[in-house]
Amino acid sequence: MVLRDQMIDMTKKAKTAALALGLISTRAKNQAVSAMARALIFKSDYIIAQNKKDLTAAQRQNYAKALVDRLTLNAKKIKEMADSLLETAKLKDPIGEEMASFKRPNGLLIKKVRVPIGVIGIVYESRPNVTSDCVGLCLKSGNAVILKGGREAIHSNQAIFKVLQDALRKTEIPTQAIQLISSMDRKAVEILLSLEEYVDLIIPRGGEGLIRFVAEHSRIPVIKHYKGVCHTYVSDQADLAMAYDICFNAKVQRPGVCNAMETMLVDKGVAKEFLPQMLTGLRNAGVEIRGCPRTRAIVKDGVKKATEKDWEEEYLDLILAVKVVDNLKGAIDHINTFGTKHSDTIVTKDKSQAQEFLKAVDSACVYVNASTRFTDGYQFGFGAEVGISTDKIHARGPMALAELTTYKYLIFGQGQIRQ
Amino acid sequence: MVLRDQMIDMTKKAKTAALALGLISTRAKNQAVSAMARALIFKSDYIIAQNKKDLTAAQRQNYAKALVDRLTLNAKKIKEMADSLLETAKLKDPIGEEMASFKRPNGLLIKKVRVPIGVIGIVYESRPNVTSDCVGLCLKSGNAVILKGGREAIHSNQAIFKVLQDALRKTEIPTQAIQLISSMDRKAVEILLSLEEYVDLIIPRGGEGLIRFVAEHSRIPVIKHYKGVCHTYVSDQADLAMAYDICFNAKVQRPGVCNAMETMLVDKGVAKEFLPQMLTGLRNAGVEIRGCPRTRAIVKDGVKKATEKDWEEEYLDLILAVKVVDNLKGAIDHINTFGTKHSDTIVTKDKSQAQEFLKAVDSACVYVNASTRFTDGYQFGFGAEVGISTDKIHARGPMALAELTTYKYLIFGQGQIRQ
Repeated sequence: MVLRDQMIDMTKKAKTAALALGLISTRAKNQAVSAMARALIFKSDYIIAQNKKDLTAAQRQNYAKALVDRLTLNAKKIKEMADSLLETAKLKDPIGEEMASFKRPNGLLIKKVRVPIGVIGIVYESRPNVTSDCVGLCLKSGNAVILKGGREAIHSNQAIFKVLQDALRKTEIPTQAIQLISSMDRKAVEILLSLEEYVDLIIPRGGEGLIRFVAEHSRIPVIKHYKGVCHTYVSDQADLAMAYDICFNAKVQRPGVCNAMETMLVDKGVAKEFLPQMLTGLRNAGVEIRGCPRTRAIVKDGVKKATEKDWEEEYLDLILAVKVVDNLKGAIDHINTFGTKHSDTIVTKDKSQAQEFLKAVDSACVYVNASTRFTDGYQFGFGAEVGISTDKIHARGPMALAELTTYKYLIFGQGQIRQ
Repeated sequence: MVLRDQMIDMTKKAKTAALALGLISTRAKNQAVSAMARALIFKSDYIIAQNKKDLTAAQRQNYAKALVDRLTLNAKKIKEMADSLLETAKLKDPIGEEMASFKRPNGLLIKKVRVPIGVIGIVYESRPNVTSDCVGLCLKSGNAVILKGGREAIHSNQAIFKVLQDALRKTEIPTQAIQLISSMDRKAVEILLSLEEYVDLIIPRGGEGLIRFVAEHSRIPVIKHYKGVCHTYVSDQADLAMAYDICFNAKVQRPGVCNAMETMLVDKGVAKEFLPQMLTGLRNAGVEIRGCPRTRAIVKDGVKKATEKDWEEEYLDLILAVKVVDNLKGAIDHINTFGTKHSDTIVTKDKSQAQEFLKAVDSACVYVNASTRFTDGYQFGFGAEVGISTDKIHARGPMALAELTTYKYLIFGQGQIRQ
């Protein structure tokens, strides 16, 4: 069979499974997700052996250490994957929730109820745990899922997928509800993105290249999980000790994630007092500083020159861009120009400043006096996340179970016709 | 300036206006929308004169009468456009609504609030009233809007747009918040669809060709307002008198709209009793019937042969496809295979049949014992509509003010950092 026919066959089967899955009870879904968790533990050795193949290939190709770390599976990581599935099984089922109910003057009763989206395609890179996390969240929310992982994790993803799908055989969930694209031909993704008849949503998670490719080629709605160029604005009314802690945390605690700070904006009113100590602290933690001319005028040593490109850079590393801004408006304008609508925070004691920042910054998560590192499904109390949406349509910020659903209107009549 | 530069300039200005518009008071938005309504009335003669140019061109090109009708503006139609704007001004402002509020164990207070989407591009055909309706709804919901009408209505659209934009000059709303693409080069739409940096959402309204073109070329999220192949299923448990009225209404009352019935599914248990009278009634109203073999076996005269293609046809005319199905499951399968996820209804006295239909039919609006013609923002009580979404992402069914918004999270801390 040629690739296109294979893809049509796979997505058709997923659509049929999705229609069945939408009618399955919460109890049956929970049993299936729990069965998958047990299977992961039971088959740990097999998964680790397959993962070794990916690690060997990665080493041969001299992949960066960070990438190899993310790729590595061991008993502890597999236990975490299983625990995450068990947590998902415990979450409240969003399907069937009555979101609104109203009666019209003509007697029609209209109910808006939460239903699954249908078939969700997830195109991702690197971390193999995404495979089991996404399968758990999609099945719990009644969706079929088509997975397309990266070449670097192919053996790990296939092993995890096989274990999960085998576990479904003893449950009420059709095994076709989860599918893995094993072709590493980019053409396969291109075909997937054209099958709007069978696939309802595409979620790309990964680097800029992947996201752009998907957004450019998809005829199916896409919710992008794009980069996070997150800002902290230290206002002229900031508690500077608090600002120090927040900036340090947002940059240093885990620099390789999308909710870490990439640019620090400091009000000119406090820059002279704040910057020397802050930049020393960051440098001592190994952070490379790239500053604007005013920053470099205040801290003369060890601050590299920032270029325009730095303002839009997601370093995902111990590097920080620093800019002195004239005032609150300067900070807001900078964020709305160079930010990625992810997460931004202001440190201030002034409530009206805080309100203006909250209202004017056009990002999914806007903070006052807290680290941007809290943008996360677990931290928000959603119990899980499929990622962080940087789009504005359908889902913004942490995407969890509710964001993997849509709604339909049920209308109850007694023979009403339109006049 | 070349076209691309013009388009970038226009969308950039719209983005700047959108950021300002998001901060403007409800009162100021209402004043602006009302001012636009008054301006339409005041400038009726000018608009009608410009409309004449489009009508002359349409006649020269022998456009279908239905199309010329939809294109024609007169004092009454302009009054309706103005009234619709005044109604929009009266609607509750969705912006700022607190959709959820919760406190985390670490003390963070998280609020989910409704905000405008930003810049919305609307690509549409034919009816010039769409121009003022969409401007009103977008401005009221705090969004900037970029309009791209069809060639056939170019003079009408430009005249309406000029009147609306002039009316904004005396208001707090930046005139750049509404933009009209006047180039009739399809390249202009293609460029618009590539400017994801400045435009947040595209809504195409029109024929299949337009929708496909937009879905294929857009890098920006699209909410499709696609065709409605709506079904009525007359079950074996139907009140046949009610079924007659509902089918007649859904097909005949206004056949040219997307919520009209295109295919009637009749259960084999009642087909012999129901079909002769129903088809006679429809034929007497001028409806052409295209039936499956079982339909033609029951009603021998005047029923054309339906082909596979008829099941997916949106006639928008006095034509009806008719199929006898074996049972409820047969009806559901037909709808989920050939339907367009728009509106479908079952006529039945049996509650468990109704429940199964409501649950299994994968459409935006699923009815029991009522005509599909009620799928409409006004009929649903939303006070307005920008159209009917046939997509599942973000908005399903009638799209009104709330569906033109998104949300953001506001997070209030006291110095919280991530452990």
